[in-house]
Amino acid sequence: MNKLKISGKRLLDSLDRLSTFGGRPDRGVDRLAGSAADLQARRWMAEHLHAQGLESWTDEVGNVFGHAPGVGNSRLLLGSHTDTVPAGGRLDGAYGVMAAMEVLTTLHEHGHPAARCLEIVSFWDEEGARPESSGGMVGSTALCRSPRLTLIDSYIELHIEQGPRMEEAGHELCVVEGIVGVDRHLIRVVGEPNHAGTTPFPLRKDAGRALVRTAAVTQELLRSVHDTVVGNIGTLTLDPGAPNVVPGAAQMVLEIRAPHEESLTRCADVVLERARTIAQEEGCTVEHRLLSHKPVVDFDDGMRALLEKVTLGTGRAAGCLYSYAGHDAGVMSAHVPTGMVFVPSARGVSHSPREYTPEHLLVQGAQVLLDAVIAHAEARTVSGSSGGAGAAPSARV
Amino acid sequence: MNKLKISGKRLLDSLDRLSTFGGRPDRGVDRLAGSAADLQARRWMAEHLHAQGLESWTDEVGNVFGHAPGVGNSRLLLGSHTDTVPAGGRLDGAYGVMAAMEVLTTLHEHGHPAARCLEIVSFWDEEGARPESSGGMVGSTALCRSPRLTLIDSYIELHIEQGPRMEEAGHELCVVEGIVGVDRHLIRVVGEPNHAGTTPFPLRKDAGRALVRTAAVTQELLRSVHDTVVGNIGTLTLDPGAPNVVPGAAQMVLEIRAPHEESLTRCADVVLERARTIAQEEGCTVEHRLLSHKPVVDFDDGMRALLEKVTLGTGRAAGCLYSYAGHDAGVMSAHVPTGMVFVPSARGVSHSPREYTPEHLLVQGAQVLLDAVIAHAEARTVSGSSGGAGAAPSARV
Repeated sequence: MNKLKISGKRLLDSLDRLSTFGGRPDRGVDRLAGSAADLQARRWMAEHLHAQGLESWTDEVGNVFGHAPGVGNSRLLLGSHTDTVPAGGRLDGAYGVMAAMEVLTTLHEHGHPAARCLEIVSFWDEEGARPESSGGMVGSTALCRSPRLTLIDSYIELHIEQGPRMEEAGHELCVVEGIVGVDRHLIRVVGEPNHAGTTPFPLRKDAGRALVRTAAVTQELLRSVHDTVVGNIGTLTLDPGAPNVVPGAAQMVLEIRAPHEESLTRCADVVLERARTIAQEEGCTVEHRLLSHKPVVDFDDGMRALLEKVTLGTGRAAGCLYSYAGHDAGVMSAHVPTGMVFVPSARGVSHSPREYTPEHLLVQGAQVLLDAVIAHAEARTVSGSSGGAGAAPSARV
Repeated sequence: MNKLKISGKRLLDSLDRLSTFGGRPDRGVDRLAGSAADLQARRWMAEHLHAQGLESWTDEVGNVFGHAPGVGNSRLLLGSHTDTVPAGGRLDGAYGVMAAMEVLTTLHEHGHPAARCLEIVSFWDEEGARPESSGGMVGSTALCRSPRLTLIDSYIELHIEQGPRMEEAGHELCVVEGIVGVDRHLIRVVGEPNHAGTTPFPLRKDAGRALVRTAAVTQELLRSVHDTVVGNIGTLTLDPGAPNVVPGAAQMVLEIRAPHEESLTRCADVVLERARTIAQEEGCTVEHRLLSHKPVVDFDDGMRALLEKVTLGTGRAAGCLYSYAGHDAGVMSAHVPTGMVFVPSARGVSHSPREYTPEHLLVQGAQVLLDAVIAHAEARTVSGSSGGAGAAPSARV
């Protein structure tokens, strides 16, 4: 039979319509979770699903679901989120939800059997951008704690990369291998405050100097561990913070992201070792606290194999990468076999009105999502409900 | 005739008594300008002068003056300040005022003619430590703007060093050559804020990294200009200051102190040149603003020669140095021939309850002050009122 195709025009129309909720004159979007624009967008999505003859419901958290009438109790979930950061873009999250809706609509209007084992979702508050937010991924976290999770046997999320790696590599599609782990370290150097005029350099215990000397070489140290590591020093303060007082203490938060747990550990070790050596040279001491640890997420092998087969099947330039940003897929992955597909972000820009992906790549990504759903349904049929066979996603214990 | 001697016991008793005003259990002093303790100390000083048969008056700013009855209209002023920083020490300022009082008392009780061309002062608010203070040196600045300045033809201040240089060099006395100039520079690096996860290192414009790389080598750059230069980076901030955002801007205040104006200029040049080179490597730009400039003070040649003759005449280990902290003498120096003498600070500690100078050195310093006053009066007698001859202070035009 002819290959089933999504409607590119309908997908792009849906994205345009969604972008009117909270739309800004600069083509950006203000649609913080729980804002009037966010609630209007969710109502529109539910009404739009009903208008296509599909069913929709909203759970007590605010997640909006959609499925075909007569859907079964073992469902592949497709989705992402429709909330944005302030002055966000039109695609982050929104693309994955609109593509999921397009895939469900296409399958439903063609009476494809895959429609009966499919659910779509717009998760609530992925961004965590509201001051009162509990930190993002609120809707997916709530679903994973709900008894309704038993209806979901796997999850696929289509998303823009939000970084420049695909564009640099010339990739139009990428299967996401996992999500990097993220450690945040507080590194504090303690010296001795002193008069900045009367204290000669050799007699100082300048905590600020010890810390900036460490900070100045941190990037090189992280790169020496593994070329997949990134890190950031986003905050750095000196105490007491007066122009005429030699800093008696200084602290920074070092964030490290890596696709391997051992890289995270090793990075912290090499930076702290250097910090201690420098601090000793400056007559200071180092204090350290791990502020937070988000472990590395490795997506399900079977799901990755399925998505790789589908993306390579497009004949387009495709690759694999780790996501350096967090996603609802990271939450879902702890509970059901999960996969992700990225399309490129022009110049890597995201969380900005300048977020952009060429339309033909958006359409191509949604088509790959449809292909993956069909392949997943076929693998499900072949292997029954036991999963794990061939390219089908493996069951989690 | 026998050499006139101060009373060491009376000097130390006066210092002890003064330290009870705002005294702390840890032997430190809280006597901020304008506090109850400061006002009580000033009243005590006036009463104490009266009790010695001396005259005292307080001007409208709060400066407390003292002199012998029948004082002339061409006076050498001796003094310092009796206000302290919070949790300050017993000697900073207080020593110079109590020594001046002891010198005046000694001359007066011996009917020495030098008493009739001498005024002593406790200046108001030298420290500028009150939140509402206009920045310190308030009393000396006010005197220099007042018509009463015409009564003063020269100024000598005895002070603790507040630094460790004398102790290191083994000096018991030092003639102060001048006061270093102090420049404060705001150095701001502008880059581009970005996602700290999805933006690979080579694509960042990390303003924080550019600034800390500069800060890490600033001390070496300053030392390369001249070994008399000191500097400090006391404040450094990153914007927007979030662990997961690559800093889009970063700024620090660099304070530079040097005894030569050309060193101040050259230091700023070399640091800014390096900052611009590093910023370019990091894809950033540098903005610079001179926040403040306090010019170098060089004390009067004649006064320095007189003080050197007197200190060398003690037969004690004596030297010369620049002061790296500001003093009322710096203000006075712009208006009348001015000189300063330092005694050592143990371990260089000042602005602290641990401020300490051995008693025999305090007594020796006050004796030198008396010797200087007598030498100054003798030079004044020899040269008449024209000044400038021999070791006498030269007149300022």
